Amino acid sequence: MLFIIGLGLGDEKDITLRGLECVRKCEKVYMEAYTSLLSFGLASDGISSLEKLYGKTITVADREMVEEKADQILSEARTSDVAFLVVGDAFGATTHSDLVVRAKSLGIEVRVVYNASVMNAIGICGLQLYRYGETVSIPFFTETWKPSSFYEKIQKNRGLGLHTLCLLDIRVKEPSLESLCRGRKEYEPPRFMSINTAIEQLLEVEQMEGQSVYNDDTLCVGFARLGSESQMIVAGTMKQLRSIDFGSPLHCLVIVGKTHPVEEEMLDFYKSGTENLEQDVVNVAA
Amino acid sequence: MLFIIGLGLGDEKDITLRGLECVRKCEKVYMEAYTSLLSFGLASDGISSLEKLYGKTITVADREMVEEKADQILSEARTSDVAFLVVGDAFGATTHSDLVVRAKSLGIEVRVVYNASVMNAIGICGLQLYRYGETVSIPFFTETWKPSSFYEKIQKNRGLGLHTLCLLDIRVKEPSLESLCRGRKEYEPPRFMSINTAIEQLLEVEQMEGQSVYNDDTLCVGFARLGSESQMIVAGTMKQLRSIDFGSPLHCLVIVGKTHPVEEEMLDFYKSGTENLEQDVVNVAA
Repeated sequence: MLFIIGLGLGDEKDITLRGLECVRKCEKVYMEAYTSLLSFGLASDGISSLEKLYGKTITVADREMVEEKADQILSEARTSDVAFLVVGDAFGATTHSDLVVRAKSLGIEVRVVYNASVMNAIGICGLQLYRYGETVSIPFFTETWKPSSFYEKIQKNRGLGLHTLCLLDIRVKEPSLESLCRGRKEYEPPRFMSINTAIEQLLEVEQMEGQSVYNDDTLCVGFARLGSESQMIVAGTMKQLRSIDFGSPLHCLVIVGKTHPVEEEMLDFYKSGTENLEQDVVNVAA
Repeated sequence: MLFIIGLGLGDEKDITLRGLECVRKCEKVYMEAYTSLLSFGLASDGISSLEKLYGKTITVADREMVEEKADQILSEARTSDVAFLVVGDAFGATTHSDLVVRAKSLGIEVRVVYNASVMNAIGICGLQLYRYGETVSIPFFTETWKPSSFYEKIQKNRGLGLHTLCLLDIRVKEPSLESLCRGRKEYEPPRFMSINTAIEQLLEVEQMEGQSVYNDDTLCVGFARLGSESQMIVAGTMKQLRSIDFGSPLHCLVIVGKTHPVEEEMLDFYKSGTENLEQDVVNVAA
């Protein structure tokens, strides 16, 4: 059987009892390193604290490996219990549908252990989850490549008064241009888009498109390291948030739509306004 | 300090290690009984298995109690650690913003322990979470009261090709008409809307409004007892799902928007088509 187990957002303590029970009985344990590998994955002591907790050796599987070794993972899952660990939830911001489809096509049983995802954890800021429109992704711009399909989606959401979650680009294991030319596998250092860069790009697109979808004064909420001990959440205008240092990744951003009074009351707690902003935020929201 | 701890969707095993650690160190433990109390709350052995796991006595707090005794809960949280347990996630389908706002206004520290919510667990059916529009609620109709504000929202979502999550009505501790007349507190038995009723009401509204937003042949996904061992997920047209017995609550329904091939591949696994439907679904999806 293939167990797809959500690990939650913070650290090794965010697995559920059900998830822990499953992973402990699995013969082989893989962990995805596609996207949100920061909190757990990159730091080798992150992995070893997981291994200690589970009493198992973990094979970290990046996208390439999952694609290349899917057959092996699935053939193991046919005859034994295999865990595939996913930061957040299995079907949250990152989907693992492909592996599931392949498993089910082969008649391998799949069980999912749910956990929190950024898609629901953003509820903590007080904006109601059912009042979000389509989620958008903001990719890193280059000098010559500025894809802006998110703009029209934000426009539609805002037209309906809905909030918009912006997921910010993560570049991990991108082959370097040099290595592509030389035919060797070398990778760029990982890059994670900050809230500041996201807002700059958003405003750049607004300037190009000129549909007045949002501007400097549009209310947003910035989230950094959601679910970790150092979680930081600040509400403010694009102009305000653009100059705040949210610290290390991962970041995401919500563009606030039409608000209800209850939502406003909660948002107020996250608004800046004191000198001692970060301290304030950590106390309130951590 | 006030800890708001998500319990997840299934049973006592769905709490996270972090959540368990927090609840164990709290001096007082409350548990919300607003909405999704089925899996844990209603059955008294559900509560006692939680109490056993936590080594704590749990005070089950219905909506009235939370409103009436909020001052007491908050004054306890001022001087000691108090846990408020919430089925699912703290800010998922049900929000507990009000209690948080009151706590923060009083300067009481609030910490949230995240968990899975129905809002992200529906991702398991393969429809991508970022392609959902506004979530709607379907209330029980009566002979004379048929509120249908969900219709326009579904229309807007479908106009944009987005999926729509429909949360189905839950009636718990509703005063009976008789008791209101007599001035005594007596309650109607709890009622939980089934997928069948939801679809009947949806089609009734379509017939009244006549905007061709959806019809008998519109593809939907029905979810019952999401996250529990007996979870059941079936994809099919409204006509097909209307006659399927999804069993005990809680139910919810997704109206499928425009799909991508990867979404379709996953959905296919949940489609009916065999005689042995329920068995099939449980094997595939549980």
